[in-house]
Amino acid sequence: MPIVRLTLQEGYEDALRVRLAERLTDAVRATIAAPLEAITIVIDEVKPSSYMRGRAARRPGAALASPSDTVRAFLVAMEARDLAGARSLLAPSFRMTFPGGAEFTALEELVAWGGKRYRFVRKTYEGFDECFGEQAMVVYCFGTLSGEWPDGRPFEGVRFIDRFTVDEGKLVDQRVWNDLDAVAARQNATAG
Amino acid sequence: MPIVRLTLQEGYEDALRVRLAERLTDAVRATIAAPLEAITIVIDEVKPSSYMRGRAARRPGAALASPSDTVRAFLVAMEARDLAGARSLLAPSFRMTFPGGAEFTALEELVAWGGKRYRFVRKTYEGFDECFGEQAMVVYCFGTLSGEWPDGRPFEGVRFIDRFTVDEGKLVDQRVWNDLDAVAARQNATAG
Amino acid sequence: MPIVRLTLQEGYEDALRVRLAERLTDAVRATIAAPLEAITIVIDEVKPSSYMRGRAARRPGAALASPSDTVRAFLVAMEARDLAGARSLLAPSFRMTFPGGAEFTALEELVAWGGKRYRFVRKTYEGFDECFGEQAMVVYCFGTLSGEWPDGRPFEGVRFIDRFTVDEGKLVDQRVWNDLDAVAARQNATAG
Amino acid sequence: MPIVRLTLQEGYEDALRVRLAERLTDAVRATIAAPLEAITIVIDEVKPSSYMRGRAARRPGAALASPSDTVRAFLVAMEARDLAGARSLLAPSFRMTFPGGAEFTALEELVAWGGKRYRFVRKTYEGFDECFGEQAMVVYCFGTLSGEWPDGRPFEGVRFIDRFTVDEGKLVDQRVWNDLDAVAARQNATAG
Amino acid sequence: MPIVRLTLQEGYEDALRVRLAERLTDAVRATIAAPLEAITIVIDEVKPSSYMRGRAARRPGAALASPSDTVRAFLVAMEARDLAGARSLLAPSFRMTFPGGAEFTALEELVAWGGKRYRFVRKTYEGFDECFGEQAMVVYCFGTLSGEWPDGRPFEGVRFIDRFTVDEGKLVDQRVWNDLDAVAARQNATAG
Amino acid sequence: MPIVRLTLQEGYEDALRVRLAERLTDAVRATIAAPLEAITIVIDEVKPSSYMRGRAARRPGAALASPSDTVRAFLVAMEARDLAGARSLLAPSFRMTFPGGAEFTALEELVAWGGKRYRFVRKTYEGFDECFGEQAMVVYCFGTLSGEWPDGRPFEGVRFIDRFTVDEGKLVDQRVWNDLDAVAARQNATAG
Repeated sequence: MPIVRLTLQEGYEDALRVRLAERLTDAVRATIAAPLEAITIVIDEVKPSSYMRGRAARRPGAALASPSDTVRAFLVAMEARDLAGARSLLAPSFRMTFPGGAEFTALEELVAWGGKRYRFVRKTYEGFDECFGEQAMVVYCFGTLSGEWPDGRPFEGVRFIDRFTVDEGKLVDQRVWNDLDAVAARQNATAG
Repeated sequence: MPIVRLTLQEGYEDALRVRLAERLTDAVRATIAAPLEAITIVIDEVKPSSYMRGRAARRPGAALASPSDTVRAFLVAMEARDLAGARSLLAPSFRMTFPGGAEFTALEELVAWGGKRYRFVRKTYEGFDECFGEQAMVVYCFGTLSGEWPDGRPFEGVRFIDRFTVDEGKLVDQRVWNDLDAVAARQNATAG
Repeated sequence: MPIVRLTLQEGYEDALRVRLAERLTDAVRATIAAPLEAITIVIDEVKPSSYMRGRAARRPGAALASPSDTVRAFLVAMEARDLAGARSLLAPSFRMTFPGGAEFTALEELVAWGGKRYRFVRKTYEGFDECFGEQAMVVYCFGTLSGEWPDGRPFEGVRFIDRFTVDEGKLVDQRVWNDLDAVAARQNATAG
Repeated sequence: MPIVRLTLQEGYEDALRVRLAERLTDAVRATIAAPLEAITIVIDEVKPSSYMRGRAARRPGAALASPSDTVRAFLVAMEARDLAGARSLLAPSFRMTFPGGAEFTALEELVAWGGKRYRFVRKTYEGFDECFGEQAMVVYCFGTLSGEWPDGRPFEGVRFIDRFTVDEGKLVDQRVWNDLDAVAARQNATAG
Repeated sequence: MPIVRLTLQEGYEDALRVRLAERLTDAVRATIAAPLEAITIVIDEVKPSSYMRGRAARRPGAALASPSDTVRAFLVAMEARDLAGARSLLAPSFRMTFPGGAEFTALEELVAWGGKRYRFVRKTYEGFDECFGEQAMVVYCFGTLSGEWPDGRPFEGVRFIDRFTVDEGKLVDQRVWNDLDAVAARQNATAG
Repeated sequence: MPIVRLTLQEGYEDALRVRLAERLTDAVRATIAAPLEAITIVIDEVKPSSYMRGRAARRPGAALASPSDTVRAFLVAMEARDLAGARSLLAPSFRMTFPGGAEFTALEELVAWGGKRYRFVRKTYEGFDECFGEQAMVVYCFGTLSGEWPDGRPFEGVRFIDRFTVDEGKLVDQRVWNDLDAVAARQNATAG
């Protein structure tokens, strides 16, 4: 106990059902201090002709990609400077906010703005968090940045965190925080 | 469809069951693109004497506080400078990381460090996110900082984000990012 | 087998649950030639706070009167000449059709029309049938009429059947067939 | 809610399960004023070796034809004057009652009786109603008759209704009401 | 897994449900090598008005005494020479078989027969086994006998086993095996 | 009612599921005086990827041989003097107790001991009982012995009973009671 019994129409792949069972486990575990080995998930599958809601057959909902997979695809495209690929993952209302409050709606604006801040930057990821909220899904990724300042000096180990809002498989919002300014200030102080 | 049927021992409060049903709904919705109104949660409650696992009766797991409630309580205590109250919410291994990579294990260290950066600081919250992962629960809160620099000049609208790891109702880890350095650099540039 | 398991929010009266179980039994029995004693109905009741659809609590649907009860109430009121009481059971679009194709929308029209056909008439009921269709519910009642012709001669044992359409507890449609004309024709032939 | 969960042995065809789900929906909807889209039916199917009642395996009950299908087959055969085909659908105790109280047990009696009332008659169907009662199933069909009187004059639009009792796939009882006498009386009055 | 879900009408006492859950656990464990802590039993209770079989309400079956309790009561009565009390636990067809094939139907016969074999005998119980078979329940008890031979010499530690068939709370059959003859033979040999 | 619903991972053979359903029926029937035909067992099978306990997939427990099958195999091997085959069915701690309290741990000891008591002995089985207890499974077999005494005289119809403890498919304990001494004593008395 608790025992969760989920009924689905048949046809979902093993991996989808496993992912769903994990998330249901996590939802229970976050709410009740039950021993982990007591949390049981069972998924019953029924034929489409064995399910009816509102006196009508229903098509099963499509399997959703993990929101963090969408975010990863975006990050890979951006690192490869594949702006077209990255753009294909954005909702029309997409909006980015960067340190100091810089806001952009087009990826080109971000690239131009970044060009004044560093010659290049690379992300090393420490972790991804997925939040399944009432309104939308949120994905966080955090880790460190390495790259070169405009003057060619290298930097590394600079902490960052990105917060993405994902809705229907598209990125709606990206918010970025990092220590680039803190590190630059310290380096300048040291340099001065 | 999907239909989630959860079995619990009787005795949990209404609010706990509602919270659990919401989280189960969110877990399903994050995984399958089903129409929201088709996601149904039913909770069956049974008497303690009607449940047996491993040929033994089992005590129901205690209701857990929401991890964001624990975080909120910590933030309130810190803002009120109630270090004892804040400390009571920390796991023994608690560790904080602040912009520029400053790390502390004791709240007094943080207070001393902050004292050099601002006269005071106040947080305005825009949102909280809860992530229920395999290892532990993570709570994010983000918004803006306002306060006074050491020289008495005011600041406000400075973006911040905190990431807390919560385990068994205690804070294990706090990581902080904010734009204080970015804002200070800009103000200094302007001032200069 | 078959086993029907119905989940309701708690609060429905015993009689309602029994009626529902009977109707579910009848629905199964009309479809599969299972031995009657093998058709099992179980009703699970859950607390309102233990049910959620579309991430929202739901108020349980009200218990419906049996459509044949509505029809019986109408028939009793008509027999007692309580036109106001009878009218309170009619939908605004109510329409009646009588032998020979006579159609009325107001009860007074029917009374006036009937006054030319008989001094009075009384119904003896042999049976009621309830049909639960996709669009609405239909109630049939049938039996015999007795009364007096306009000339004072009595009649009895005259077969009739009424078909009522019931929607949301109101009568939408009444269609009447009977043998009054057949009997009158025979009596006239005999009399002549 | 309500959620109906039906367990069957595997092997029933899709159409049978769909029909059963529709009838269960209708049974619920006739009893509780729940929003239609909230009435959910799920059918679980289990292997014959996964079901036992009374410590014995059980053969699943045969799928039943819809009682209205049996009635339609009878009506088609009668219209085509296929008395043998029609008779094959009758229970041994079959009995018919026609306007004016005429009763028959053999189809030939009906044909002879009808021969004096009209040269031919044809039915146009407006609707069929199926009632699943405790004792047996009842099918109603209603609509209009057209044909020719014995003197060759045509008639049409004459209302009729038939009530059939169906038990184990055979017709047990047919009761007929119609306006032929009313229409004839009016025509005679007009003619006179 | 396995998960056993049992549905009962409400009203059974806690102890009865616990005993039933234990027996269901044992039945599963005897058949599948699942880890004990994975065998879960859940009992759902429904109101009498929420259960219908064969379109009729059903009275819940009475709780049965454990067959070993019936046997224990019989053994206690026999040891106390309460023949009336012991007899009240016997089915009309009760029959006993003792070592050497001695058969009795009346307790007095047994007492008379035993009187020639020992002055008195007392049972010490090592264990009781209950078997729930298709036809009836069987209870075994085994342990050792102590007492005095007809000549007054004592004996003790003499192995015995009794097999009882129990049906509807009454003893139908008792079969006894013991080592009294083996011990007597050995003692006689020694004595000789 | 009672209705038992068992959930297993798919893959068990028909015979295993039938045996399990029989044992669950017997467990219920031993506890509640329900009419046998009302005891219903349904087994739901789910895919391995549709089951998770403790956030991990689980391998289904292996099907267990019936403990009486293990006992029968041992008895067959002993009767055929196949000591190696019989020994393969014994747990390392196996121990036998025979009439008069003779105890052995090796089959050869038993054979040597028996050799002094009879030239040969053969068992005729009247019944087997299986008990599924909390600690282990117990199998009883009983019937009659026939054979020859050491002096060549025959015997037959001598009652016996064996009690075996079975754990994880191996015999842990055998206890034997029989009437050989009683019969020998009587024969000697008669002979004398």
